[in-house]
Amino acid sequence: MVPVQTRPSIAALRNVATRLRIDSVRATTEAGSGHPTSCASAAEIVSALFFAEMRYDPRDPQNPDNDRFVLSKGHAAPILYAAWAEVGFLKRDDLLKLRRFDSDLEGHPTPRLPFVDVATGSLGQGICAAVGIALNARRIKSDYRTYVLLGDGESAEGSVWEAAEAAAHDRLDSLCGITDVNGLGQSGPSIWNHDMEAYASKWRAFGWHAIVVDGHDVPAVLDAFEEARKTKGQPTMILARTVKGKGMPVAEGKNGWHGKAFKKGEEVDSVLRALESQLVAEDEPAQPPDGPRARRDQSRSAAPKKATVGTLSYKLGESVASREAYGTALAKLGDGDDRIVALDGDVKNSTFSEKFEERHADRFFQNFIAEQVMIGSAMGLAARGAIPFPSTFAAFLTRAYDFIRMACISNVNIKIAGSHAGVSIGEDGPSQMALEDLAMMRAQPNMTVLYPCDAVSTERLLELMAYEAGPAYMRTSRPKTPVIYGPDERFAIGGLKILRESANDAATVIGAGVTVFEALKAYDQLQKSGTSIRVIDLYSLQPIDSTSLLRCARETKRIITVEDHYAAGGIGDAVAAAVAEGGFAVERLCVREIPRSGTPEQLIDHYGISSRHIVAAVTA
Amino acid sequence: MVPVQTRPSIAALRNVATRLRIDSVRATTEAGSGHPTSCASAAEIVSALFFAEMRYDPRDPQNPDNDRFVLSKGHAAPILYAAWAEVGFLKRDDLLKLRRFDSDLEGHPTPRLPFVDVATGSLGQGICAAVGIALNARRIKSDYRTYVLLGDGESAEGSVWEAAEAAAHDRLDSLCGITDVNGLGQSGPSIWNHDMEAYASKWRAFGWHAIVVDGHDVPAVLDAFEEARKTKGQPTMILARTVKGKGMPVAEGKNGWHGKAFKKGEEVDSVLRALESQLVAEDEPAQPPDGPRARRDQSRSAAPKKATVGTLSYKLGESVASREAYGTALAKLGDGDDRIVALDGDVKNSTFSEKFEERHADRFFQNFIAEQVMIGSAMGLAARGAIPFPSTFAAFLTRAYDFIRMACISNVNIKIAGSHAGVSIGEDGPSQMALEDLAMMRAQPNMTVLYPCDAVSTERLLELMAYEAGPAYMRTSRPKTPVIYGPDERFAIGGLKILRESANDAATVIGAGVTVFEALKAYDQLQKSGTSIRVIDLYSLQPIDSTSLLRCARETKRIITVEDHYAAGGIGDAVAAAVAEGGFAVERLCVREIPRSGTPEQLIDHYGISSRHIVAAVTA
Repeated sequence: MVPVQTRPSIAALRNVATRLRIDSVRATTEAGSGHPTSCASAAEIVSALFFAEMRYDPRDPQNPDNDRFVLSKGHAAPILYAAWAEVGFLKRDDLLKLRRFDSDLEGHPTPRLPFVDVATGSLGQGICAAVGIALNARRIKSDYRTYVLLGDGESAEGSVWEAAEAAAHDRLDSLCGITDVNGLGQSGPSIWNHDMEAYASKWRAFGWHAIVVDGHDVPAVLDAFEEARKTKGQPTMILARTVKGKGMPVAEGKNGWHGKAFKKGEEVDSVLRALESQLVAEDEPAQPPDGPRARRDQSRSAAPKKATVGTLSYKLGESVASREAYGTALAKLGDGDDRIVALDGDVKNSTFSEKFEERHADRFFQNFIAEQVMIGSAMGLAARGAIPFPSTFAAFLTRAYDFIRMACISNVNIKIAGSHAGVSIGEDGPSQMALEDLAMMRAQPNMTVLYPCDAVSTERLLELMAYEAGPAYMRTSRPKTPVIYGPDERFAIGGLKILRESANDAATVIGAGVTVFEALKAYDQLQKSGTSIRVIDLYSLQPIDSTSLLRCARETKRIITVEDHYAAGGIGDAVAAAVAEGGFAVERLCVREIPRSGTPEQLIDHYGISSRHIVAAVTA
Repeated sequence: MVPVQTRPSIAALRNVATRLRIDSVRATTEAGSGHPTSCASAAEIVSALFFAEMRYDPRDPQNPDNDRFVLSKGHAAPILYAAWAEVGFLKRDDLLKLRRFDSDLEGHPTPRLPFVDVATGSLGQGICAAVGIALNARRIKSDYRTYVLLGDGESAEGSVWEAAEAAAHDRLDSLCGITDVNGLGQSGPSIWNHDMEAYASKWRAFGWHAIVVDGHDVPAVLDAFEEARKTKGQPTMILARTVKGKGMPVAEGKNGWHGKAFKKGEEVDSVLRALESQLVAEDEPAQPPDGPRARRDQSRSAAPKKATVGTLSYKLGESVASREAYGTALAKLGDGDDRIVALDGDVKNSTFSEKFEERHADRFFQNFIAEQVMIGSAMGLAARGAIPFPSTFAAFLTRAYDFIRMACISNVNIKIAGSHAGVSIGEDGPSQMALEDLAMMRAQPNMTVLYPCDAVSTERLLELMAYEAGPAYMRTSRPKTPVIYGPDERFAIGGLKILRESANDAATVIGAGVTVFEALKAYDQLQKSGTSIRVIDLYSLQPIDSTSLLRCARETKRIITVEDHYAAGGIGDAVAAAVAEGGFAVERLCVREIPRSGTPEQLIDHYGISSRHIVAAVTA
């Protein structure tokens, strides 16, 4: 342990707060946009955190044992940047490049900056990520603490209460939230305004220790942090009553000043004069902390090893659902790499993530039916070095699309799996069928999108997915499908498999997942009448093997896609984009209307994606 | 008012509950799948609701003054169907067609059935819809009450707490929730299990009247409903302690029985024997209610009139942001049609929905920063005859994608608007930029998708969108753009505008929104060097005018799309699918990576969608 450092004087911390306000005002005025008043309400909180409460190395923001700070109210970015300038990591002059194309000091924080773990700016997400960051401390056995600053308006997001549940359930006493209750949202008073008891009773009901303080009273804020640190067995939420635009006379406590930079000239000059007059005499300036609570050099030294799923023993023709192979493979990967963690939303017995839990209970996080915090905390875990695999029904990933979007902006190693894709789930009906998941995942430009059809490809692709940099998605299916690949078959991110091929193929038929088997059935039927088709298993939709697809397009002229997915954004569109440069168009078989309940076979046929329809398309 | 009818005897209500259990078991066993144990825990609650508490016409489920019932725990669908058989609306024999392709009794409820307002089955959504249904009672000045049955597992969804906030804020005392606390989720105990105080304290903290009862004690349940009815100024949540699989010895209170039908043969026979033995002597059977609380025949008679935005007075070349024209048009539509309502997520001064609020405050619903309940309650309002326009930044609609998905399954008249699309918002950075909204909206097959470029087209398309049956989405832009259409220009859902055309166009360039102006600039630049291009404003992406696009493809051979959206699922894909049958491929200019902060002009140019890139593509 490093010695507890001397706490700066209250006067010094007050001056830090004032300087943070000044820097926030200057930067936003120079940029011509931004949120100075949302920074002002949090200035004492940020000052106390960065100069008295948090233990971290200000020269090394990525030190794994540093206390972490997440700015959930991401629009207050200028004060975050100002704090890192105040501790010496950024140059003060660079603050004036805020929001410029040539600066990483963006309008809302992103991990382009080494002191930002996850992108924020979509409200209610930072606290979910903070849950994952706090869980990660347990995983790496570090005693770092996690702090997260929320806005009061943000607290209306349901995801905040998903995070509240998860953190209380996991007894995350290393997590400390601070809600900057400045009473004003963007367009008017926030939902509970300055009713501090309305906030406190909610957090207490959700199992947190709640402390109400005056957020501009530095000693009170310091005491609250100390009380939080001493609170065991539950997380703490500090509810700080504050004033929006505090210290800025023209805007202080007034509606109508959200997201407005002060105008150059007398408007900003008067604000700056007022702020400068708030600087007080101090004995010595505040010093940033000199390192994390504990130093563990070994934590960074050992290069982590990649795990494998090992030798596979599936037999050709054996029936195995890809969702089950997913669980089997994940459990094995977890054996060899303790960075692998899994997160569930109370469907582990359907997605088969329970196989991972059986072997690695300490790295399995149950989020109950709360998909947003599942993805959000996976984002936080990934940002701190874990390789998280959150999974649920693919349909319910739509619930967390904003979180997936932000995980992509953060470009973290989050490995999402969605089971029960498409009409092939059968009787449960449309609410349980994912028919837009490929569209939603492919839309994110840095998302790897995989869709295996059998157990062998599922296991091998999972292994590849785990170690491919950045976000990735695997779509798995409910029905059992035959194993078509031998145990030594090799796969690649961005690859495909040509399953049937001849010199005189009438068309290339491209499927993935369950439709690969419809294409193979169509092949057999067409062979009987002397027609050959090329059959492709397009297991990697993004990236996609354009070269092979273009070659097939040139050789067979016709390209037909068949998918258990709606028309827009899926396999048809992916292939069409890939072969466009050759001037080729694509014929598409896909689900073109909202489906209903029925047996898988009935639905696959009724919605036009069965072998019968492929045969008809080829012979049309 | 109809006279208060005689309450059935407790014995009769108990027998109804038992018959509901029997029907649920028979139907699921016949189907071979389903959730009989999740029905069993709710049987007394449903019996009390349908035979004693609710006032409705069992022969006319769509009567606008009927009390409404939403099954938020949609997997308990069989008991809902059984209840409607018990009141005589469905034939008992039809219950055995559960989950069959030829039956509307789907695995989870959908509005194919006249007694279902909104599709459920994605948990945590029914209570959001119920908020909207309760708000609708105020809109039509009916005294119907709204009941919503939730599961305990479901209560972990953040959206439940968004609904809790919204309903308390709006003092919805006509809303009564019942949580069926059976203690068990799908894969294990629910998050708070049978800790009734954990539930009650949360609901109370969120401003609800909370009542804890034994959910199998019929008199206690009836008393709770009465207490709820008498509670004014706040909604009530009845927390019913129940047993999953109640009355079914093999499964009662046991984990591992979620979503499992009893097997035909001795397994189901023993369950049915046990249930039949629970039938008790009764004086006379329970009778369904004889109508709603009040009858207002006029409520159905007057055919609603469509409103218009009237004569437009924009001048050609005038600069107006489409988001502002949206607000202007919406306020005018509201003048002429009181079915039009607007919902906000604390960004009304950015989306300009505040213009509607200024004129129609009683039909403007503020959801604060809670997009899920905004879309969910819009869904409920739409299901009961309103034409709701929820709006926020398009980026934040990703937060509610699961709700949008379910609104599409429900096929309700929900009219969603998303502002601040694309990199053209500038300095705020990627978290605030919608670059996947077109992909996510187009993926839903029954969603109309519109993207106007100027004020005139925005107003006219809004008018059309309001009265187009089913869900619709309008994308608006942040920057001001010049008015290019005269006040009498006509538009159509599924139309487009050819803005520049000649007999020797080198290519067709298709834009929408801000990129229309880049295409027009490219036209001017290319004209100088003697090259003509065709320029299309593709303001309707779904449906899309394939005929005109195919004609242009045939005439100009080359098709180039340019869009302020990611590569997948947007304008390029929409056009490619539309011209595929002619064998044409599409060249795409779009945003291909996660963007950063900068000025709109810098970003449009840097990410490859400016006039310069169009010129380069045409002359390549």
